[in-house]
Amino acid sequence: MAKSRVLLIGCGGIGTVAALNLQTGLQADVSLVLRSNYAAVQAAGFRIDSIDHGVLEDWRPATVLNSVPDTSADPITRFDYIVCCTKNIADSTPQLSDIMSPAVTPGHTVIVLIQNGLNIERPVQARFPTNIVLSGVSRTDAHEIAKGVIRHKQSDNLNIGAFNHPTIDPTELIAAAEHFVRIYSAGGKTVCRHEPNVGLDRWTKLVYNATLNPICALTGLDTGTLQTDGRSLDALVVPAMKEVVAVAAAKGYLLPEDIISRTIASNPVEKRISPSMLVDVRKGNLIEHENILGEVVREAEIADVTAPMLSMLYHLCCGVQLRLKEGQ
Amino acid sequence: MAKSRVLLIGCGGIGTVAALNLQTGLQADVSLVLRSNYAAVQAAGFRIDSIDHGVLEDWRPATVLNSVPDTSADPITRFDYIVCCTKNIADSTPQLSDIMSPAVTPGHTVIVLIQNGLNIERPVQARFPTNIVLSGVSRTDAHEIAKGVIRHKQSDNLNIGAFNHPTIDPTELIAAAEHFVRIYSAGGKTVCRHEPNVGLDRWTKLVYNATLNPICALTGLDTGTLQTDGRSLDALVVPAMKEVVAVAAAKGYLLPEDIISRTIASNPVEKRISPSMLVDVRKGNLIEHENILGEVVREAEIADVTAPMLSMLYHLCCGVQLRLKEGQ
Repeated sequence: MAKSRVLLIGCGGIGTVAALNLQTGLQADVSLVLRSNYAAVQAAGFRIDSIDHGVLEDWRPATVLNSVPDTSADPITRFDYIVCCTKNIADSTPQLSDIMSPAVTPGHTVIVLIQNGLNIERPVQARFPTNIVLSGVSRTDAHEIAKGVIRHKQSDNLNIGAFNHPTIDPTELIAAAEHFVRIYSAGGKTVCRHEPNVGLDRWTKLVYNATLNPICALTGLDTGTLQTDGRSLDALVVPAMKEVVAVAAAKGYLLPEDIISRTIASNPVEKRISPSMLVDVRKGNLIEHENILGEVVREAEIADVTAPMLSMLYHLCCGVQLRLKEGQ
Repeated sequence: MAKSRVLLIGCGGIGTVAALNLQTGLQADVSLVLRSNYAAVQAAGFRIDSIDHGVLEDWRPATVLNSVPDTSADPITRFDYIVCCTKNIADSTPQLSDIMSPAVTPGHTVIVLIQNGLNIERPVQARFPTNIVLSGVSRTDAHEIAKGVIRHKQSDNLNIGAFNHPTIDPTELIAAAEHFVRIYSAGGKTVCRHEPNVGLDRWTKLVYNATLNPICALTGLDTGTLQTDGRSLDALVVPAMKEVVAVAAAKGYLLPEDIISRTIASNPVEKRISPSMLVDVRKGNLIEHENILGEVVREAEIADVTAPMLSMLYHLCCGVQLRLKEGQ
């Protein structure tokens, strides 16, 4: 069987782990598009310390590009998959769909969004109405700690499922998701599974992402240190999580009863996990608060569910984003 | 008439302006206690650019000390006033009353707290039950931009009034407030008035301090830039201000109807005012959130007034304080 041609955009922590898995499985021919770390990787390859893949010095993927290639002229160059592991900053340009556009073959390329947040498929489906879009929900802890230097501390765990599509046959959607899971898992160094209930999966992760992520970004504390103030869970985290659960329920996604205690338990004090938005704030990068939090607040409004904590966190994050934009 | 002997503790922006006014009036003999800027002022005096006092190079107050003197042994050294212009950080040591203690003559020294927040007199009155404690509510914009370098951009405006006292005759309290106003105003370069309704005065300032101050500290934005996001007033500032007004009302302080619009109007976009807590966060200093915001939240609980916005801002500020303490 011919290898799948994969274009992977955005090689920070999560993207590099995805590239490693796809390459290790030998069922994909991976081209990486790098931006901020292109020069560093050209010079010295990736330096990776991974709980799944070990220590790799000067790791070089097959093809490294510094921009998204235009595949429209020559059908042989077309990609079977475009895997997006960039941040998804809804309130900045260029938009993700503009970035990937030159490499999307209508009706063929499957677009995989391994990204946080809600409703992220909407602008992509609107722009590429004949392409399948897959959801990737990653639960790993992998960060780029310097240009091209990746620290991957928690085993890769990726749920893949197709976003609903108004005109594409569901069996085709499922087949695409299952095929991607196969090529991603082939190397045997990851837990990647097909999770057909994309909505439930994404709302489940939002219990963490719409609450601990902005709270840590606003206070400057990791999830462990935050909890050393005994009041922070009761006064901030749990009430905000309850609001996420309520909005999810109004949308028809009934999260398990223990979702809040489980989410907190997976962020124990001693692990001192820095959520992505906190990492971004520390680096002076823009934050993903629109997709992670803003969409939840907007869904709450549409569903007429009161979510004052989430609304306040969201608007404070809008202020942080304004500061970050001024700093750029 | 003999000059009043005044010990002034804390010579940042507000403290230096107070020292200037007291010294200019020639009715006070002022000793300053400096801490962080002691060496700089010993070497080169203060450098002051003041809207009220002009540009002063190498300004040196009469007496500069680097610790609070012990006046207990010799009555002739006792102070008539101790003016506290330090930050009032309720959740750190040493506490203000410990700091001033060696210089407080029981039954004699009048303690003037030119500081933000609510219930700040309580620990001082508890520690020095026979001393009058005056409230100073300052509305000026004066900052120390480098050690001993003061920028004073908005004319000094100080309200003085006595905090209620369980055992001291009210006429004595009033006399003390009026006398302090006299010596502070004698130089004619300030608006300093006697405001007997200390509670109303402090709650009025809290409409600003319990809302814009923490919101700016959490977002990293000055009050002007904050408002360039059109939603921030409606979504954050105004609802939080309404909660302050409601708590004040429950405490018996009916703030004027236009207090919210007036408070916002005095922080126009073009002025880009950085509230004190934002300045502290930027400098890595501890913040005064306990007195400015925590006390309001606790008063709301006591009065059974719901104040979810203030509560959330407060607990986020507790997280910021934890980070600041870790950084020290």
